[in-house]
Amino acid sequence: MRRITVLLVAVATLVGVVVFAAITSRNVTAQEATPIFVTEVPAGYRDWRVVSVTHEEGGLNDIRAVLGNDIAIKAYRAGKLPFPEGAIVGRIAWSYVPSEENNKAFGHPQSFVAGPPTDAYLQFMVKDSKKYAATGGWGYSSFDKDAKPSPEAGVKSCFPCHEAVKDRDFIFTRYTP
Amino acid sequence: MRRITVLLVAVATLVGVVVFAAITSRNVTAQEATPIFVTEVPAGYRDWRVVSVTHEEGGLNDIRAVLGNDIAIKAYRAGKLPFPEGAIVGRIAWSYVPSEENNKAFGHPQSFVAGPPTDAYLQFMVKDSKKYAATGGWGYSSFDKDAKPSPEAGVKSCFPCHEAVKDRDFIFTRYTP
Repeated sequence: MRRITVLLVAVATLVGVVVFAAITSRNVTAQEATPIFVTEVPAGYRDWRVVSVTHEEGGLNDIRAVLGNDIAIKAYRAGKLPFPEGAIVGRIAWSYVPSEENNKAFGHPQSFVAGPPTDAYLQFMVKDSKKYAATGGWGYSSFDKDAKPSPEAGVKSCFPCHEAVKDRDFIFTRYTP
Repeated sequence: MRRITVLLVAVATLVGVVVFAAITSRNVTAQEATPIFVTEVPAGYRDWRVVSVTHEEGGLNDIRAVLGNDIAIKAYRAGKLPFPEGAIVGRIAWSYVPSEENNKAFGHPQSFVAGPPTDAYLQFMVKDSKKYAATGGWGYSSFDKDAKPSPEAGVKSCFPCHEAVKDRDFIFTRYTP
């Protein structure tokens, strides 16, 4: 009886260990396979060229410039999809504020300018089809004015929305000449 | 009697000619001294860096990117006034249009993007203190989407408005980092 007990315990332990290892390794693999955002602000982004400009009302209440690195701008101007590896499309979002000074010059209220940075001040999509395969080939990122990454839950919500323009390689903003 | 008449006529004619020449030359000099706008779109402007972004309501109804050439951007970032010779600050004005596609993605109407070029699509201020002394050291210009200069009357109205920010070297737009 004793030997069987010992054997059963040993087997159970072994099974337990194997199962635990399997679960743990799967989680690790899953995390490695789906890094959905980058944690560093791309160097020199503020010097990139303009793709276009946008204003978001409502909760966001921002005015934004969408910029592209050289690879992105070249692709935009060529009108070629998908974007090549290494393309980065970034967007700076400032608060949307009325300009009293401009309104005075114009003679009536009409002018809205870029104010202080918003919470999700800088956002970038980085093209790397292998690394970011789980999110359509783009790594999503978001930072505040101190280059601190935005809360993960928010960043994880980027890709599901961008799937709406999957046929334009997940990029909403069109280049305006 | 005859000699005096001839003399008087000669003198009168001479005076007339001198006066005419004086008037004519003064007009020409005046025009040369106050060229208030440039007639060519600066090369490569679309690749310049962003100063900031703005939205104008009312009659203009545009959304705009203000760009600067290297000299202008360098001065902006150094926070130094006046702008150096050769600085050029330009602004691209697109129509301000709602984006149905973005609104669908966001789940409610809030998104406004850059549409087709406006009439006064491109405007530039070029710094040359000697050439444009009459207009505060800046040459004003305006062009439509075909690079055709805007009507002169409109361009002549630029400087009087910009005088409101004479203490910022006549530039309204502030650099937003």
